[in-house]
Amino acid sequence: MAMLENKHTSVVFEPGSVEVKTSKLKKTDASSPPAELLIVAPEAEGNYPVLLFCHGYCTKNSWYSQLLQHVSSHGYIVVAPQFYQCLLISLNDEIKTAAKVTNWLPAGLAVSLPENVKPDLSRLALMGHSRGGKVAFALALGYAPTSLNFKALLGLDPVSRLSQPGWVEPDILSYVPHSFHLSIPIGIVGTGLSNQTKGIIPPLAPDGFNHSEFFNESKPPCCYFLTKDYGHCDMLNDPNVALASLVCKSGKGSKEKMRRGVGGIVVAFLKAYLGGECEDLESIVATPTIAPISLNSVIHIKE
Amino acid sequence: MAMLENKHTSVVFEPGSVEVKTSKLKKTDASSPPAELLIVAPEAEGNYPVLLFCHGYCTKNSWYSQLLQHVSSHGYIVVAPQFYQCLLISLNDEIKTAAKVTNWLPAGLAVSLPENVKPDLSRLALMGHSRGGKVAFALALGYAPTSLNFKALLGLDPVSRLSQPGWVEPDILSYVPHSFHLSIPIGIVGTGLSNQTKGIIPPLAPDGFNHSEFFNESKPPCCYFLTKDYGHCDMLNDPNVALASLVCKSGKGSKEKMRRGVGGIVVAFLKAYLGGECEDLESIVATPTIAPISLNSVIHIKE
Repeated sequence: MAMLENKHTSVVFEPGSVEVKTSKLKKTDASSPPAELLIVAPEAEGNYPVLLFCHGYCTKNSWYSQLLQHVSSHGYIVVAPQFYQCLLISLNDEIKTAAKVTNWLPAGLAVSLPENVKPDLSRLALMGHSRGGKVAFALALGYAPTSLNFKALLGLDPVSRLSQPGWVEPDILSYVPHSFHLSIPIGIVGTGLSNQTKGIIPPLAPDGFNHSEFFNESKPPCCYFLTKDYGHCDMLNDPNVALASLVCKSGKGSKEKMRRGVGGIVVAFLKAYLGGECEDLESIVATPTIAPISLNSVIHIKE
Repeated sequence: MAMLENKHTSVVFEPGSVEVKTSKLKKTDASSPPAELLIVAPEAEGNYPVLLFCHGYCTKNSWYSQLLQHVSSHGYIVVAPQFYQCLLISLNDEIKTAAKVTNWLPAGLAVSLPENVKPDLSRLALMGHSRGGKVAFALALGYAPTSLNFKALLGLDPVSRLSQPGWVEPDILSYVPHSFHLSIPIGIVGTGLSNQTKGIIPPLAPDGFNHSEFFNESKPPCCYFLTKDYGHCDMLNDPNVALASLVCKSGKGSKEKMRRGVGGIVVAFLKAYLGGECEDLESIVATPTIAPISLNSVIHIKE
């Protein structure tokens, strides 16, 4: 019985049962998305919740394809815009682009998918990594207007700014606990090494501006998970982790486990808050060791 | 009925029914305290819980006498050491002195009080303001050994360091939510203006090092109260607020109300966690407007 339970509770950390297809949508395509999009969607007929994903600083949406495929294989359509090609854009412009993509979803997403794969935009969640985590929070907080409401929000190692002032505007942190004016559930995944220097390079997620403060300012219901042995970019695809680890500290453990660990947390959170199935999330909170990676701080504040 | 309830719930914000006596104990006194002490204690016969209070940076214990008298008048013995006279001491030495005072309490406190006023050291709480808040947390965290256990911990606008690195050692903050290894209840009172500059003087309680982060790292049960219209030193006695406001931003409202507001929160917290009477604390959390000052963020995480 115990074994059966354990098997059940760790299912989110394994690839899901749904075959997925990964495709790119260009701005010149028929549905005219406001940015180039990476779309990862189940192939089987169905009505699926949607996750909008914002990539991090100087990264490409495709660098997250394995993580996003893990999530999608559990029955989610993931839409990941590419915010810039060669030149970086301002944070405010990035937030506006994320809003435009959100507003494009009702008319554009369904026609960009096979006819039998239907997006359920009444179950729409938002997620971002690093600077993209800040973009996601800013979008949820209304810094750019959207025609759809998000039902849940996830930050993967979100960062508000670098050690040296940069990306400051908009300054979404107030340093007051539970001060985000958001009533939707919030999940935060932090990495234990992201506040460390890499040689002479300052941390990409410095103390006071990282996952910990984002969690502190989140109202319940909110969850927090610290992947203590991993670094800021360790959830990217393997070749991209190798590149990123030139500028930020990387963990020694398997990155495949890290992607399954983070992906599993995301799936458990979405199942709980988009689908009302709380079992997996509660199992991780009760027994963090069911994850394939060490989680040394797991918090779930329900109310 | 509503009026009666309201009257009941705000009683902690009014001076208590117990007459109190304020006295100073010198190091040369018979009981040989390890530091000069300000003692505020009820005069009526009784067995009272004890609160050890650590003053802030460059302040004197006597500057808090009105706040401490408010607390004591609700039935508490308050012991407030003076950590230095003219010269500042290192934080580590301040923590050691606080530990020595704690260890002195069993033999020294009772004999320093009238015979019929008895300290109940099985109900001992710890509180500090500003840098003294950090001292209190460090002491509770075991940075210096004590022979007594604290049953509850309160930080009044606690600060871990200034904007320019100073007071860094010991570095008690880790920037991980709920990471303080403390299972006792924690209460934090923050002030809304303490992260602001005063002219060219940097804030005394800068973002990332203040009340908000102390709360973030506290495990439940924990409470948070933000006195949004007041400054870092506005709970001192009036003449001392005037002096302090030369170097830190002060609120425009009545300081007498601020002392009653903070004092009332402290009393409600101590009643709940030293005495098991949770009504007043729950009333403040449910209806922050019963306080004489604006509390724009009141949080109580029970578990």
